[in-house]
Amino acid sequence: MHFYMPAKVYSEKNCVLNHAEELAALGTHALLVTGRSSAEKNGSLQDVIDALTKGGVKYTHFNEVEENPSTETVMKARDAGVNAGCDFVIGIGGGSPMDAAKAIALMIKNKDAQADYLFDAAKPTQAIPLALIPTTCGTGSESTPYSIITRHELKTKQALPHKVFAALSLIDGKYLATAPAHVLTDTTTDALAHFFESFVNVKATDYSRLCVVKGLEIWKRSQQLLQHLDTEKPSEEALFDMLNASMIAGMAITHTGTSLPHGLSYALTYNTGMPHGKACGFFMPGYLREADKDMASEVLRMAGFTDTDDLERHYEITCGRDTVDTVVLEMSVQDLLSNPAKLSQAPFKVDETVLRRVVGV
Amino acid sequence: MHFYMPAKVYSEKNCVLNHAEELAALGTHALLVTGRSSAEKNGSLQDVIDALTKGGVKYTHFNEVEENPSTETVMKARDAGVNAGCDFVIGIGGGSPMDAAKAIALMIKNKDAQADYLFDAAKPTQAIPLALIPTTCGTGSESTPYSIITRHELKTKQALPHKVFAALSLIDGKYLATAPAHVLTDTTTDALAHFFESFVNVKATDYSRLCVVKGLEIWKRSQQLLQHLDTEKPSEEALFDMLNASMIAGMAITHTGTSLPHGLSYALTYNTGMPHGKACGFFMPGYLREADKDMASEVLRMAGFTDTDDLERHYEITCGRDTVDTVVLEMSVQDLLSNPAKLSQAPFKVDETVLRRVVGV
Repeated sequence: MHFYMPAKVYSEKNCVLNHAEELAALGTHALLVTGRSSAEKNGSLQDVIDALTKGGVKYTHFNEVEENPSTETVMKARDAGVNAGCDFVIGIGGGSPMDAAKAIALMIKNKDAQADYLFDAAKPTQAIPLALIPTTCGTGSESTPYSIITRHELKTKQALPHKVFAALSLIDGKYLATAPAHVLTDTTTDALAHFFESFVNVKATDYSRLCVVKGLEIWKRSQQLLQHLDTEKPSEEALFDMLNASMIAGMAITHTGTSLPHGLSYALTYNTGMPHGKACGFFMPGYLREADKDMASEVLRMAGFTDTDDLERHYEITCGRDTVDTVVLEMSVQDLLSNPAKLSQAPFKVDETVLRRVVGV
Repeated sequence: MHFYMPAKVYSEKNCVLNHAEELAALGTHALLVTGRSSAEKNGSLQDVIDALTKGGVKYTHFNEVEENPSTETVMKARDAGVNAGCDFVIGIGGGSPMDAAKAIALMIKNKDAQADYLFDAAKPTQAIPLALIPTTCGTGSESTPYSIITRHELKTKQALPHKVFAALSLIDGKYLATAPAHVLTDTTTDALAHFFESFVNVKATDYSRLCVVKGLEIWKRSQQLLQHLDTEKPSEEALFDMLNASMIAGMAITHTGTSLPHGLSYALTYNTGMPHGKACGFFMPGYLREADKDMASEVLRMAGFTDTDDLERHYEITCGRDTVDTVVLEMSVQDLLSNPAKLSQAPFKVDETVLRRVVGV
């Protein structure tokens, strides 16, 4: 077994400004990678600009990352970064800008390569330095080497074979304060799926599980404060708990990868636009019902659930369970059946029958 | 709060040979740093030589690291490494060779510097690449940036201000199989002290405690197999549990530092020759008796003890409690009183009265 998560992570109030010097030390000209507007609204973009300005570091802002970013977006940002002379990348936002930032850091380093470099495992993994600043609480991209990119030509999302870690990850609860309630529930569901899929995983070890045990304690604590989201804003403490749980869940999947729920979610999101965390949560109870009973009970108990029915109720209350057309679910099954690496992540034998039980078709 | 432990750690049977390629990739000429003979006896030295030979990498062997290595030894090894043209260091053994290897990697990089560079916080931390291979189960040096070196001119041991992490740490239970029983009990006591002193620490956070929670579960599991050390050898599983607990305890103190028991132990070891883990354990019950009751109960429970008296009994059975002269204990008190940084690690106010209660003088 192994342990390896080399990103330096800070989590604290005013984190970006407190560590402005370390951020600026990553290079001389930063490419800031964000979505259209949330990094402006939540204040993270301004903090980064202030930190870089203080350090005398130039920047170029690429703000065109869409949800589930595509290869085309990565290549457009790469060109912008190369043209501006960027020598490091700062990804700010949820999973989409952060995952895109990894792919962009890789492609700027390989500035003459074609887009197929991204998905070519035979090519060396070399990237310019990267900092990540999460503003949602599910992806954990700030502590994983994973980057999931949409391939329109294949009609699904796919993980890059290249493993790119941030050098520096800066976490501040205040960036989560302006996130809509549905973003919080969606992304904390993604973090929960990371814990479950890392614990119930053929690659789980004592090293990976150290992240799950304490991480779920923090996740559970944060959830107790999320029940009144419709009437009140979560406290600063709750916001940090959500972000820290998400970071630790990232460390967990860094060592195991995810499993069937994530594998099934990609096509579901591609075909219906269902948010990523909600799509993973859709398949969570079905996955745990197929797992070893003791193992499933243990991880459900750590998360504060009595059993899979209790988890299902929680999902319905927080995310709402959509009615999904059988034809669409069938596409998830077929997509995952064509991905033997992901199928083998489950610590039990998975054939089409098992997969249909997990999905419910 | 922060998380940062960039060493890549592998733990598995035949670990060194399995990862020979990564080990050899660290440079072209390795300085092997060991004690007099244990690395030969337990097979680790031969595995490293085989791995390097396979990779076409030269090596020079420095086997003069004594217990509680001195500045003089570090400088002698530095000269040997520089003369041979070494560009990376492999430390093999317990805390003494591994801590020395960090200091040596630092001094080879600064090959014209005097010995005072080691203890000069104003000097930059730069070291040649380092790999570590633990053959005892207490120090956790393979996952910490710490190096404790004996300063004869000050009559004590001191932590370097420089933080040097291994690039690669390779853990194999078989190297522990030939360790005498007293080495196992001494070093697992050191690991236990790391867990306790990291959990009951002013710098403890949710990030540092994720190492303690799961780590103590593994430590406790290993102890159930240690009770028959006088009549039977521990199983391979128990050996790995001890090493993995020790690595995770290292991760815990990486994020908090140690506290009073370690601070008191240095002079005790210097003055009496008491082994390091045993010396730390000597002060553990007294430390936990001064701590917040709920916090102490929680960490004792995780380790499998009902209370501090139960811990004291465990210490007496496994390590044996020596009668230590009051004059010597007084020297530990005075040594720690002169170390305000270490005093401030306790999450409660420490004055001479409190310290005397911890020590029992």
